Amino acid sequence: MSETTSDPDAPGPSTPPSSEPPPPMRPTLSPTLETHPGLSAAELRDVWMILTPDERFDGFRLLPRGDAEEFFLELGARDHAELILGLPSSERRVWMRLLAPDDAADVLQAAPSENKDELLALLDTRTKNEVSALLAYAEDEAGGLMNPRFARLRPDATVDEAIGYLRRQARGRIETIYYVYVLDEQQRLLGVVSFRELFSMDPTQSIRDIMHTDIISVRDDEHQEAVSRIISQHGLQAVPVVDAESRMKGIVTLDDIVDVVQEEATEDIQKVGGMEALGAPYLNVAFGSMLKKRAGWLSALLLGEMLTATAMAFFEDEIARAVVLALFVPLIISSGGNSGSQASTLVIRAMALEEVRLRDLWRVARRELGAGLALGMILGALGFLRIVIWQAVTPTYGEHYMLLALTVFGSLLGVVTFGTMTGSLLPFVLRRLGFDPASASAPFVATLVDVTGLVIYFTVASLLLRGTLL
Amino acid sequence: MSETTSDPDAPGPSTPPSSEPPPPMRPTLSPTLETHPGLSAAELRDVWMILTPDERFDGFRLLPRGDAEEFFLELGARDHAELILGLPSSERRVWMRLLAPDDAADVLQAAPSENKDELLALLDTRTKNEVSALLAYAEDEAGGLMNPRFARLRPDATVDEAIGYLRRQARGRIETIYYVYVLDEQQRLLGVVSFRELFSMDPTQSIRDIMHTDIISVRDDEHQEAVSRIISQHGLQAVPVVDAESRMKGIVTLDDIVDVVQEEATEDIQKVGGMEALGAPYLNVAFGSMLKKRAGWLSALLLGEMLTATAMAFFEDEIARAVVLALFVPLIISSGGNSGSQASTLVIRAMALEEVRLRDLWRVARRELGAGLALGMILGALGFLRIVIWQAVTPTYGEHYMLLALTVFGSLLGVVTFGTMTGSLLPFVLRRLGFDPASASAPFVATLVDVTGLVIYFTVASLLLRGTLL
Repeated sequence: MSETTSDPDAPGPSTPPSSEPPPPMRPTLSPTLETHPGLSAAELRDVWMILTPDERFDGFRLLPRGDAEEFFLELGARDHAELILGLPSSERRVWMRLLAPDDAADVLQAAPSENKDELLALLDTRTKNEVSALLAYAEDEAGGLMNPRFARLRPDATVDEAIGYLRRQARGRIETIYYVYVLDEQQRLLGVVSFRELFSMDPTQSIRDIMHTDIISVRDDEHQEAVSRIISQHGLQAVPVVDAESRMKGIVTLDDIVDVVQEEATEDIQKVGGMEALGAPYLNVAFGSMLKKRAGWLSALLLGEMLTATAMAFFEDEIARAVVLALFVPLIISSGGNSGSQASTLVIRAMALEEVRLRDLWRVARRELGAGLALGMILGALGFLRIVIWQAVTPTYGEHYMLLALTVFGSLLGVVTFGTMTGSLLPFVLRRLGFDPASASAPFVATLVDVTGLVIYFTVASLLLRGTLL
Repeated sequence: MSETTSDPDAPGPSTPPSSEPPPPMRPTLSPTLETHPGLSAAELRDVWMILTPDERFDGFRLLPRGDAEEFFLELGARDHAELILGLPSSERRVWMRLLAPDDAADVLQAAPSENKDELLALLDTRTKNEVSALLAYAEDEAGGLMNPRFARLRPDATVDEAIGYLRRQARGRIETIYYVYVLDEQQRLLGVVSFRELFSMDPTQSIRDIMHTDIISVRDDEHQEAVSRIISQHGLQAVPVVDAESRMKGIVTLDDIVDVVQEEATEDIQKVGGMEALGAPYLNVAFGSMLKKRAGWLSALLLGEMLTATAMAFFEDEIARAVVLALFVPLIISSGGNSGSQASTLVIRAMALEEVRLRDLWRVARRELGAGLALGMILGALGFLRIVIWQAVTPTYGEHYMLLALTVFGSLLGVVTFGTMTGSLLPFVLRRLGFDPASASAPFVATLVDVTGLVIYFTVASLLLRGTLL
């Protein structure tokens, strides 16, 4: 699917990263490292995830220089840190300096704390200052995401002067020049011109006359999820980041946002699945740390689920009198759990995408009450039919099978409606209390609904079966 | 967080969309429509999701023209179709022509089939042809995502000629000129130059000499998930789309990819939560269609869960003899379900992000066997303690409580290990069979594990309690 020819003029380490169209590296099913003394970046990328740190390092050193640079720039911060620290001190500088300041900051964040100063010292003075400033921000806020290098202009330049000036800036170290930002002497953001506009304007016009002053910007302490929403909602290529005094600090670009969106979706999915977010690729997480993140939630759920044993003990007499009641316990409570998981998953995702906000509570509640009742009728009818048909085929449930079928119908209706309501409203409660709604995970909701499901089931049974089975 | 001043030179409808830095529209908590005869785009955006179609239409017509255009361009295809079809025929043309060809194609896809021809007829001939070509592709493949307008050059131009030519193209209708593509006379892709490179090169050089020939491209029938992976893996701003004969058809840009990533994550989350993907924002989906997507999965799960009633019936004698066994049924089976959901969620997400591939099966299996055993030990120990401590406080379980505690320990160990293995391996099986691994949803895995959990529990009980409780 892509043409592969080698490029003799591949950019050297002095070229700023991520501005060149990278070479073709379609992963193909490839043999192991040993059979490939002349390893290509595509082959290494293909096996990267399954290599040990040592094998990765060896593979990386087998790459031709041009390939190695391109491959290096595609890696994430954790891999950067691992590779650079694996190299002899004399070789570290050139790789560290290949990185844009925001990427260098990420590497420092990913590196063990005892190596941070050493890595920082490899950078030139200007980058060192930029990186130190970036490290003051949390990783998940705009300041921690931004690139401090952007194309800037003064408002009194003409289009022609601006193009000449940008030509010189472009040779330097600006990552993206899709937009050009117009700043005053205090570095306050006055306006913005797209590169493309600049390009198609009359060269004698003043920047002040063509710049847009209606600027969308984000504060440096804004959370990355909000930044990503602003960029994608407004269809921006980049958004300027300003501090509390409106001084421009950097830009967050669309490509940063793709990673943020993936990362936030992964966190949500893992929470919905009933665990703490792993925060790293599955095969890269240490076994012990993964276990900890999984065991915590499972233990909490088990403790919650212990209430079912207590609830069941409360109905021990009923079970002893009519053992047949016990047979439907898993069916009833799992239906509550399933409908609850479904509803909570829907609402959690809708909240994450801002399709649903706190004030939509009543709208969602009405909708889910309707859905819960309808789903409960459907599942209840299926449960009813199961017993009636089974009884017709092999008489199992005795003469009162019709009452038992009605008990199952009524319980499913109640349990599914309750599960749906709980699942859909719990994310609202969590958000209102300041927690992440995604913590209303499928297993959490299921556990919560299980106990109530038992109570509903045995209550319906008492009402319908008293005098016959009970 | 953003400065808000109005822009007297707001771009008119002839300006191509999505190239201008849009104006500031930070949503604020806003009152209802009625109190705002002079409605702003920010206010309308804020209430948009909770308005009925008629209210949306009224709100849209209340906007000043400049605001209306900006607001319109930010909307999705469904909203575009609804608004345009709500307008009198005479006004439809100007709005339809505001859209880039790929957006216009999306509108046609979103519109009711009886209106498609009518909407297509509103476009100018060139766009009409482009849109028709786009409509031949599925929505979720590269061809359905791409923009057919891109900056193109011949290889024999000089940098200076290229810049002049692009200046004219830029005034026209190209959405992005981050990259310039070099095509031969058959429209086959020869090379690519970044706009920024062009800008900083010696004006007399030939394009052929500076273009990169190592091009990453995607085929027009590639799935959007693969396209998005290629773009983000290689840190591209845009990727060229070529047909089977290597002719360039369009480009997919980074901003298309942000939507794809969101969309695919939402699909996965909804599947993991146990339902068909909704395919539209929660509050926008018609109640009936939402019910259908939810009831299908819930009914299937209920049918699966009916096997638990059958399994329980098989152990009816044991339950009659030792009712106390029934008390721990929900605890045991839910632990299997929870550990299974957790494992499947982890593996599904890792597969979606390509952190794990089919060939990693054994690696994952080993890791999850270890995790399952460790988690089973932890949960088993908690279950054991629950019974022993409970018995010490209020003697509930009779003289054989220790054997019961051991039964619960052994069952939890078995059930959690089995649940974890099932949950982690099922996505592999599904993918191998050509299904979406995300169908191995938490509830699906839980249901599968429930029946086995019962069998494990009653088997362990038979072994340990025969002669005492049983």
